Amino acid sequence: MDSAEEHRSKGSKRAEAVSGSDFLQLDVGQAPPGGRTEWLTDRIRAAIADGTLPVGSRLPAGRVLAAELGVSRGLVTEAYQRLADAGQVLGRGRAGTTVVAGPMPASVPAPVPSPMPVPAPAPVPRAPLSAAPTGQLGAIPSGGSHRPAGPFAPAVPSAPVVDALRGVPCRIDLSPGVPDLTAFPRTAWLQAERRVLAGLTAADFGYGNPQGTPALRAAVTGWLARNRGIRADPDEVVVVAGVAQALGLLAHVLRENGVRRVAVEDPGSLGARQQLEYGRLETVPVPVDGSGIDTAALRAGGAGAVLLTPAHQFPTGVVLDGERRRELLGWAAAGGLVIEDDYDAEHRYDRAPVPALRALFPEGVCYAGSVSKLLAPALRLGWLLVPPRLRDAVVAAKRYADLGNPILAQLVLARLMDSGELERHLRFVRRRHRSRRDAMLRAIAAHLPGARIHGAAAGLHLMVTFDGADFEDTALAAAALVLGVKAHPLSWHRIRPGSPGLVLGYAAGPPGELEEGIALLGRALGRLR
Amino acid sequence: MDSAEEHRSKGSKRAEAVSGSDFLQLDVGQAPPGGRTEWLTDRIRAAIADGTLPVGSRLPAGRVLAAELGVSRGLVTEAYQRLADAGQVLGRGRAGTTVVAGPMPASVPAPVPSPMPVPAPAPVPRAPLSAAPTGQLGAIPSGGSHRPAGPFAPAVPSAPVVDALRGVPCRIDLSPGVPDLTAFPRTAWLQAERRVLAGLTAADFGYGNPQGTPALRAAVTGWLARNRGIRADPDEVVVVAGVAQALGLLAHVLRENGVRRVAVEDPGSLGARQQLEYGRLETVPVPVDGSGIDTAALRAGGAGAVLLTPAHQFPTGVVLDGERRRELLGWAAAGGLVIEDDYDAEHRYDRAPVPALRALFPEGVCYAGSVSKLLAPALRLGWLLVPPRLRDAVVAAKRYADLGNPILAQLVLARLMDSGELERHLRFVRRRHRSRRDAMLRAIAAHLPGARIHGAAAGLHLMVTFDGADFEDTALAAAALVLGVKAHPLSWHRIRPGSPGLVLGYAAGPPGELEEGIALLGRALGRLR
Repeated sequence: MDSAEEHRSKGSKRAEAVSGSDFLQLDVGQAPPGGRTEWLTDRIRAAIADGTLPVGSRLPAGRVLAAELGVSRGLVTEAYQRLADAGQVLGRGRAGTTVVAGPMPASVPAPVPSPMPVPAPAPVPRAPLSAAPTGQLGAIPSGGSHRPAGPFAPAVPSAPVVDALRGVPCRIDLSPGVPDLTAFPRTAWLQAERRVLAGLTAADFGYGNPQGTPALRAAVTGWLARNRGIRADPDEVVVVAGVAQALGLLAHVLRENGVRRVAVEDPGSLGARQQLEYGRLETVPVPVDGSGIDTAALRAGGAGAVLLTPAHQFPTGVVLDGERRRELLGWAAAGGLVIEDDYDAEHRYDRAPVPALRALFPEGVCYAGSVSKLLAPALRLGWLLVPPRLRDAVVAAKRYADLGNPILAQLVLARLMDSGELERHLRFVRRRHRSRRDAMLRAIAAHLPGARIHGAAAGLHLMVTFDGADFEDTALAAAALVLGVKAHPLSWHRIRPGSPGLVLGYAAGPPGELEEGIALLGRALGRLR
Repeated sequence: MDSAEEHRSKGSKRAEAVSGSDFLQLDVGQAPPGGRTEWLTDRIRAAIADGTLPVGSRLPAGRVLAAELGVSRGLVTEAYQRLADAGQVLGRGRAGTTVVAGPMPASVPAPVPSPMPVPAPAPVPRAPLSAAPTGQLGAIPSGGSHRPAGPFAPAVPSAPVVDALRGVPCRIDLSPGVPDLTAFPRTAWLQAERRVLAGLTAADFGYGNPQGTPALRAAVTGWLARNRGIRADPDEVVVVAGVAQALGLLAHVLRENGVRRVAVEDPGSLGARQQLEYGRLETVPVPVDGSGIDTAALRAGGAGAVLLTPAHQFPTGVVLDGERRRELLGWAAAGGLVIEDDYDAEHRYDRAPVPALRALFPEGVCYAGSVSKLLAPALRLGWLLVPPRLRDAVVAAKRYADLGNPILAQLVLARLMDSGELERHLRFVRRRHRSRRDAMLRAIAAHLPGARIHGAAAGLHLMVTFDGADFEDTALAAAALVLGVKAHPLSWHRIRPGSPGLVLGYAAGPPGELEEGIALLGRALGRLR
């Protein structure tokens, strides 16, 4: 602060006005007349290229920089936009505008064709990620050589960080949680929508039932009976905008019912945990071992509810075993509430189906599922089954959240479920997903020595751990991002410390891309060791 | 409770089991073998017919009645369903299963063709609405002869009551808030969706920007610039699931910022007020007069924010005048936050457009709009513009609410806005709405003597008041419902007392239906006076 003041008073020609910025020591007096936007863009681009601004650095807010430089805000916005267009910065959300891509090192193989923008090559060598930042950027950690920068820098990752990673351009995306989206059944969807539109009455276009349209609630019960062994009445189903919303509604209702602490699996989904915490619930980590969640620790933790993924634990892939199931349902029968996130149960390859907990004890289990992994996350459509005692409160929460999901997509999905089209689609993508998983397994064996693989029998992702290794997995993920590959560090999904690892989605890309991605991860790993 | 115990011990043959219900003194021993579902259905139907169960009575929960009768829950469910199919009961939401239609009186004219189910005629004369309920139903008010039953009974209407009214079958629906839904542009929608589906990349089907897709945010800024005089950057727009969600998100963010009390217009929208209260904000009523909200009272009330409808106040139709605008914006400049619900501003007939407050003072005004009155409420799609200081918090709230609106409808709407299709649609429905309004004005003059009309120059509804009259408008609405006509009593949308009145939507039905509905309202009014 002192040095900023000092700089400001030195750099300013007018006593009160600010005509220069501490950021990169920019002085607009150095810009050629009529070329100030280009000048500013070039100055920032050079700072990225020479490592002054490593991946993860934040640019100043546009209005702040504009005021300091004494230029219009539009000029700064334009400069930032040019950098964004080149894939070098990302301007979204609470994180402000962030450097997301360093220069591509010369040693990276030629990119495979990809719809994602590739960062422009820079003329000077890439600075090491550990380069100590200069100027106002001292907030970025610059300690040990394995401390990553960029989205992987914070000790406790925040939701905006995950969102920021999602927005970073890359060549190969191995983030978990997305199915093969090229397979989305566009024709079937459009045909179903045509029939839906032809059949709607005028009243159907009005305000509907916040719980969901009866046709979809009935179709969901059919789907769950056929595919998940759950017998439910349509009146127990609440149509929601995906599992994220389901958790938000439940958080509200749990708090209304006096619950303040919810147990979560550790490791477990970062996103789900953040969702509960945003809903003002404290999350209590409970260890997961080879049999699933530690039910003794759950009992000891004193939480009123537990969120878990029993069919294919995220991210370990462990199946909750019979003994633990009995203990868990005993805990529920004694008054605990189980929230079952059945996020990818329909995707399995080498193992028998695992029954849903909801099928065993409907009175004690809330069950959440969605089409995000069956069709596409962008549809924002899912379902929540709740015990009778919570139903009215959950429907009220949904009502006040948004008055209910949009009608058209609900009716289209009901048609796809009722006609068997969704099951056909699932069989189709399952074959693809299996061959992609196999490709990733082969690539890991070839390129990631020392990686132990977990949870390959089902789902859309693998977990790998590097047991006994002493690097930080955020450093590995950051190094991979520099090589154009996105993956989640396992530590993002951990609360207590453990082996470094990665969570690797394999469903979204073709086998060749997966193999290349894993090979680049191997290269990043080699640099760390 | 004592009499219930007594009845149970008398009616039970087995010492522990319960084999009869106090409800209608039902004893399953009286049912013919193999005909118990029909027996139960008939007993309830007869109780509705003879006035034992007037409109608004609640049936016992299915599981309770099943346990008391010693029959399966499915049997009770089936009996209730048969009554629901006949339009006599409604089983939804926190309100449980409720009697929603008494027998049709013989004096009602033959029904016009309607897709809504008409209650089956009953063999015995209708009991007066004021009939004192029997048995367990003593909770329903049974006081003066003008005290209504059913959805209009409670002194303070609750959201489930409004939802229940929406679900009640009727012949003519004059509820406010719905445009002409027969005009929904199905073909244009489907064509746009075909093009959208053809143009989407695989990545577009993934998790999107919670703030909304850039294409729609840009299209909304264009729409608002052309139609509402608002100049905004797409980055200021948050795509939401309608104004209800916008209010829920703002309630969350306001609480985070320490605001506990929000001023609302009185009279004003019941639904909006309930939305804020569900978001744990206290609502502070501020009177509305012929110039709009009373800004002196607003200042005196000490609320941190105010929700208002300046272009066409709901329900009065008053336009906020220039002097009040200046005072309101002064209040905002001093730190207050204005939430502008521009719910039906695009619909006007006999007056010049009213500029949005947002256009005058973007830093102090949140602006919410939606397609509910432009296209259809069932789309659940709208927009929220927020001042820069609140943007990140509102986007975070939207993120945790549902990770963002579904992508397909966003892109379809963007196309309809960008192509001019939505403006064409608006011009088309405006002509229809105007002729419907004129039909309603004529009918009110003919059939509702003493009714004063408010707010006819714009919007989709009228307000009428019966100044100096001494009946309760809930009684009028209840009497109208018995005649098959739905309308909102003005008192639902008032906090402090005032003249009885009605809020009458005219956009949804054809002129002939409106005229008949008003004539029936006149008949109901005649019975009260």
